[in-house]
Amino acid sequence: MALKSFIEVHTSSHFPIQNLPYGVFKPEPGSVARPGVAIGDCVLDLSVIAAAGLFNGPILNNSDCFNEPNLNKLLALGRPAWKEARATLQKLLSSTEPSLRDNESLRQKSLIPLSDVEMVLPIAIGDYTDFFSSLHHAKNCGTIFRGPQNPIPPNWFHLPIAYHGRASSIVISGTDITRPRGQGPPAGNSPPPFGPSVKLDFELEMAAIVGPGNELGKPVDVNEAADHIFGLVLMNDWSARDIQAWEYVPLGPFLGKSFGTTISPWIVTLEALEPFSCEAPKQDPHPLPYLAEKISKNYDISLEVQIKPAGQDDSHVVTKSNFNNLYWTLTQQLAHHTINGCNLRPGDLLGTGTISGPEPESYGCLLELTWNGQKQLSLNGTPRKFLEDGDEVIISGVSKGNGYNIGFGTCSGKIVPSPP
Amino acid sequence: MALKSFIEVHTSSHFPIQNLPYGVFKPEPGSVARPGVAIGDCVLDLSVIAAAGLFNGPILNNSDCFNEPNLNKLLALGRPAWKEARATLQKLLSSTEPSLRDNESLRQKSLIPLSDVEMVLPIAIGDYTDFFSSLHHAKNCGTIFRGPQNPIPPNWFHLPIAYHGRASSIVISGTDITRPRGQGPPAGNSPPPFGPSVKLDFELEMAAIVGPGNELGKPVDVNEAADHIFGLVLMNDWSARDIQAWEYVPLGPFLGKSFGTTISPWIVTLEALEPFSCEAPKQDPHPLPYLAEKISKNYDISLEVQIKPAGQDDSHVVTKSNFNNLYWTLTQQLAHHTINGCNLRPGDLLGTGTISGPEPESYGCLLELTWNGQKQLSLNGTPRKFLEDGDEVIISGVSKGNGYNIGFGTCSGKIVPSPP
Ligand SMILES: [Ca+2]
Ligand SMILES: [Ca+2]
Ligand SMILES: [Mg+2]
Ligand SMILES: [Mg+2]
Ligand code: NI
Repeated sequence: MALKSFIEVHTSSHFPIQNLPYGVFKPEPGSVARPGVAIGDCVLDLSVIAAAGLFNGPILNNSDCFNEPNLNKLLALGRPAWKEARATLQKLLSSTEPSLRDNESLRQKSLIPLSDVEMVLPIAIGDYTDFFSSLHHAKNCGTIFRGPQNPIPPNWFHLPIAYHGRASSIVISGTDITRPRGQGPPAGNSPPPFGPSVKLDFELEMAAIVGPGNELGKPVDVNEAADHIFGLVLMNDWSARDIQAWEYVPLGPFLGKSFGTTISPWIVTLEALEPFSCEAPKQDPHPLPYLAEKISKNYDISLEVQIKPAGQDDSHVVTKSNFNNLYWTLTQQLAHHTINGCNLRPGDLLGTGTISGPEPESYGCLLELTWNGQKQLSLNGTPRKFLEDGDEVIISGVSKGNGYNIGFGTCSGKIVPSPP
Repeated sequence: MALKSFIEVHTSSHFPIQNLPYGVFKPEPGSVARPGVAIGDCVLDLSVIAAAGLFNGPILNNSDCFNEPNLNKLLALGRPAWKEARATLQKLLSSTEPSLRDNESLRQKSLIPLSDVEMVLPIAIGDYTDFFSSLHHAKNCGTIFRGPQNPIPPNWFHLPIAYHGRASSIVISGTDITRPRGQGPPAGNSPPPFGPSVKLDFELEMAAIVGPGNELGKPVDVNEAADHIFGLVLMNDWSARDIQAWEYVPLGPFLGKSFGTTISPWIVTLEALEPFSCEAPKQDPHPLPYLAEKISKNYDISLEVQIKPAGQDDSHVVTKSNFNNLYWTLTQQLAHHTINGCNLRPGDLLGTGTISGPEPESYGCLLELTWNGQKQLSLNGTPRKFLEDGDEVIISGVSKGNGYNIGFGTCSGKIVPSPP
């Protein structure tokens, strides 16, 4: 019999008892942020559950990890603690368990409608890395930026390419994004044009949240890398293509990216995603031994991006993709990241890179969808090459199970004009 | 009459009363880290000075910024607080002021020999950015990696190029550096070679420590950027040239850098460096308005790198350069960094990039000094193309004034072998 909660959860909900994603929230503006899990239309306040002594397993019964303004302490504890927390919470919320179900005052204190709370960044992010793991995205970008001859750089099939991103400008879903100003590529011998970006884009990504880190100088084995990953969020790696195109040679993207990166508030754990794991693509050439893993896993997560132009009531789907379009796995990314001895820390964010599929309808950014502005999209009649002020971009993600969804909710942000 | 301390300071010392650089130290192993300033051969414990009520100016008299394990709170307070702290400490340590000079028990508690203390990272670094601001370095690297035709990328003269670095692996001077493993460039159609880097290098750099940050979406004006910089440290941006050469197209340096970056323990303030400010090089083409500053400042800081091979008693000077070899100023770097709205935070680290001068004896890394291993250096008879296990690299920096030095001490690290 399927696990069921005493809390009513609609079958279309992203947050059934099988999911229990972690976030950090303020019950009301100005109150202290604390961890919670989403269940149906509510959030369960884990600081209240901890105070009530209901985390009674051997690892968590004396832990203060639920009295923190972020999840970093829980992340540092590792998979045994995460499994214990999940088991405790699934039992507590199940339809057959009376301890919370029949305690009205505790229910009142601990269960808060999602519509009433303010979600904040769930983690303190020490470092943010962005990979480049979709072959289709690499091929399309290479073709657009460097031409159709050898669009994919020769290293791409040998290692999961990545760059360091900017941690300070990572924001929670719902935060407005200010259109960046900057230099674009000059025409001929003119000076570079300067002003608000005219090629503002989104990038459909997901990101892994690092759990226990590793010591500087001590790489993580690829077959143990999964134990260092707590879960996944949706991510929009906003990109200014004009700024990026002019600045990125030879040291990579910088101001074309660092003005903002949005993540979704709910971290879906690898445990919850396990029923949706699937085989990763066969890799040819065979990866070097440090990247060759015994089990190479992807996840079947349907992804979708919608744009809602200013003043319109409806948003319009501009692309549909799937996490399983990634060539390099999360565990390969993490093992590669540490092979040189680089230390990861709990709460580090590892973006997958733009998740484009093979078909034009599954491309993960406007650069690809409009082929760098050569074509335009129609948002129910409104044309779009790149993002306009007032556009809201909404990413959603869900794994559809038998009678339930494991969903990520949404990751959204609206473009506001550059400062004068 | 020159300012003089009641503490004896040798004329060759890097730390006279005119300097007073800030660091964070543990008086003994296991004790709590706290801020201090260096004076002669001692460190003055600022937590003790604060507890004694001697920070009695209007800004700092109730501040707890000296009871912190890092300087971030002091950094956030901004220049008025820094000026007040400097005035308080210069008076307290001066030969004519009795309050500390004549209080033996307070002297005992607050003044500790440098040789007895353990220095730790002085700041919690949210984000680390590395620029590329020496024209000579850009030209040499471009020639080596991409050939003598147009070695300098076309954007170089229009903007201070930079990339995001890895914050987690920044370590304090004296920390061993583990030789990274990784992939190097393949020969022909062979798979990429994998193993310990065979082209391990140092990079002679300095780095600015950010004081007050800026809000996301609100750029810092170039003419106000100096108020966002607390001071400077020496930096060694260790680089694995084989890993870097293979991975860096198209997203920039990643594992070739992220295995470790060393900074010196003492932050020399811009106030202390002011007597050594000098005119920055004339820029042609004239920079865009957002980078055009009323006063364009460099600093005259003599820099030197020595290598001490394993088992040898002596270290050997391999290069001598100067901070004033930089083309882009610190303030231009900071203004550029924020022009897109990117937010800086107190404690962020902005590396200058390798500081190479025009002459071969002033090149800032082995890549340039040995022209990518085509020639070799002689360390008193011992040949070197790249760093060997056991090599210690020691960077020092000093501004020589009239009868005193403003020095940075040293920034050192020793190479230890890769894990098996
Ligand atoms: Ca990206
Ligand atoms: Ca560098
Ligand atoms: Mg971004
Ligand atoms: Mg480095
Ligand atoms: Ni960072």
